[in-house]
Amino acid sequence: MPMRRPGPLIGVLGGMGPLATADFMRQMAELTSASCDQDHYRSLVYSNPRIPDRSQAILGEGPSPLPELLEGVMTLARNGADIIAIPCNSAHHWLDELVAATRVPIISICDAVLRDLILRGIRTGAIGILGTRGTIRSGIYQERLRLSGFASVEPTDAELSKWVEPTIRAVKAGEIDVARSHLRRAIEALETRGAEAIVLGCTELPIAVDRSLSETSTPLIDSTRSLAAACIAWAMDAARPETRNAVELLAS
Amino acid sequence: MPMRRPGPLIGVLGGMGPLATADFMRQMAELTSASCDQDHYRSLVYSNPRIPDRSQAILGEGPSPLPELLEGVMTLARNGADIIAIPCNSAHHWLDELVAATRVPIISICDAVLRDLILRGIRTGAIGILGTRGTIRSGIYQERLRLSGFASVEPTDAELSKWVEPTIRAVKAGEIDVARSHLRRAIEALETRGAEAIVLGCTELPIAVDRSLSETSTPLIDSTRSLAAACIAWAMDAARPETRNAVELLAS
Repeated sequence: MPMRRPGPLIGVLGGMGPLATADFMRQMAELTSASCDQDHYRSLVYSNPRIPDRSQAILGEGPSPLPELLEGVMTLARNGADIIAIPCNSAHHWLDELVAATRVPIISICDAVLRDLILRGIRTGAIGILGTRGTIRSGIYQERLRLSGFASVEPTDAELSKWVEPTIRAVKAGEIDVARSHLRRAIEALETRGAEAIVLGCTELPIAVDRSLSETSTPLIDSTRSLAAACIAWAMDAARPETRNAVELLAS
Repeated sequence: MPMRRPGPLIGVLGGMGPLATADFMRQMAELTSASCDQDHYRSLVYSNPRIPDRSQAILGEGPSPLPELLEGVMTLARNGADIIAIPCNSAHHWLDELVAATRVPIISICDAVLRDLILRGIRTGAIGILGTRGTIRSGIYQERLRLSGFASVEPTDAELSKWVEPTIRAVKAGEIDVARSHLRRAIEALETRGAEAIVLGCTELPIAVDRSLSETSTPLIDSTRSLAAACIAWAMDAARPETRNAVELLAS
C-alpha cells in the first residue's frame, strides 16, 4: 500500500508561555476542515519556556532571548519545517534577526492579525493594542498598523501596570477569574479612547476571554487565533502546489 | 550572565488526534507548579495526524502505523528528548517495538493510569476500561491491570457499537452533548457489572466528561491527564539529579 503523502510540516517555536502554545495547537486543530485525524496537518512544536522573558529584555531589564530564539528556529529548520510560527507577540521584536538566520519562512503574528482585521472588514480607523509592556514599547503593532493605514491606541503606563500586566501574570499563574476582571478594565480604557477593534497582542490575553467579553460590541482580535488561521491557510495552500501565491504573501 | 540550565526535554509523539495532543499539553502546563514561564519544562512535540488509524490496524482493517510511529520516536530521540510520551492509547499496542527501537525511555500511558489508580487509593477490585475497539481488543489495559492484581471489566461488542464508538465519533465531530449521553450509558453498563473505577482509555473520551459525570460515585481516570501527570513527575525528578528513583520507576 503506498504511504500517504505526509504533507507540509508546520514548525512552532512555543513555550512562551506553554498554555498559550497549547491554545495555539487547539486552534490550529479546530480551524482545520477535517473529518478524521489524517485530514489534519503535521506540526513540530518546540516548546521552550526557559527562553528568557521577552518583555523584560525589550525594556532593558533582563538578558536577551535571541540566542535561545535562534536555537529554536534552527531546531525547527533542521527537522524539515516548511514554515515557522511563533505564538508569542513580544518575541516578534527579534523577527528580523530570526528571518535573517534561516531560509524557512516565518509567519509574522502581526501580519496574521492584519490579515484578520481585513478579513473581518475592518480597513480604517483606530485599533487598540493590548500586550506586554515590551510589546507596546517595541512598537511592532503600531508600525505594522501604520503601514496599512490604521491609527493605533495603546494603554498608558498606568493601565499597563494596573490591568494589562496583572492579567498576563494571572493567566500564567492559572487564575483565570482574576485575569478576566483585569482584562475587562483594560479593554474599557481603550474603548473610551476610540478603539474600533482591539488586538489581544499577547498570547496569554485570549485565555482570559469568556463569552461575556467576546460578545462586547468592539471586535477583539485574538492574535493566537490569527496566527493559527494564517498557518492553516498557508498549509492548505502548500498542499496545492499549483497555487503558491498565498504562501509567498504570508511569508513575505 | 550565565545561561539558565535548560532542564529535561519531554518528547511527545502526538497528533492522534491533534486535539488530544493540545489537551495533553494544556494538562502538562496546568500540572506544573510554576509562577512564570521559566518554571515550566521544555518539550518537543511531533504532532503527526497522518499516522494511519491505530484502532483499524489492530482490528486488521487498515495499514500498520508502526513505520510512522517509529519515525516519530526516532525524530524525538535524535533531537535530544530525555523521555517520550505518546498521548494515544491505541498506539500503545506497538509499545514493545517502539521501546526496542530507542534508548530513550517511553512512559507507558497504561503505567501512568496504574500510577493514578494507586495515588487515588484504589489497590484492588475490578477496573472498567473504555476505549476504541482496537484498544479493548489489544488487551493492553487488561494485561497491565492483571499484572498489578486488578480484575478488569470491558464493554461488550454491542456496547462498543452503541455507546463507546458513537461517543468518540461525536467528540471528533465536536458534538459534545451527544457524546456525553452516550458516554453516560457506557459508564453505567460497566458500573452494573461491578467496575469500581473506570479508565477513560481513549484521549477523546475525557473531552465528553462534564461536572455531572465527573462527580459520579465511580472514579473516572482520565488517561490523558494520567500521562501528563506522570511526565511532570518524571521531569521534576529529573531536575533533581540526586533522586532518580521515580524516573527509573516510571521509565521501566
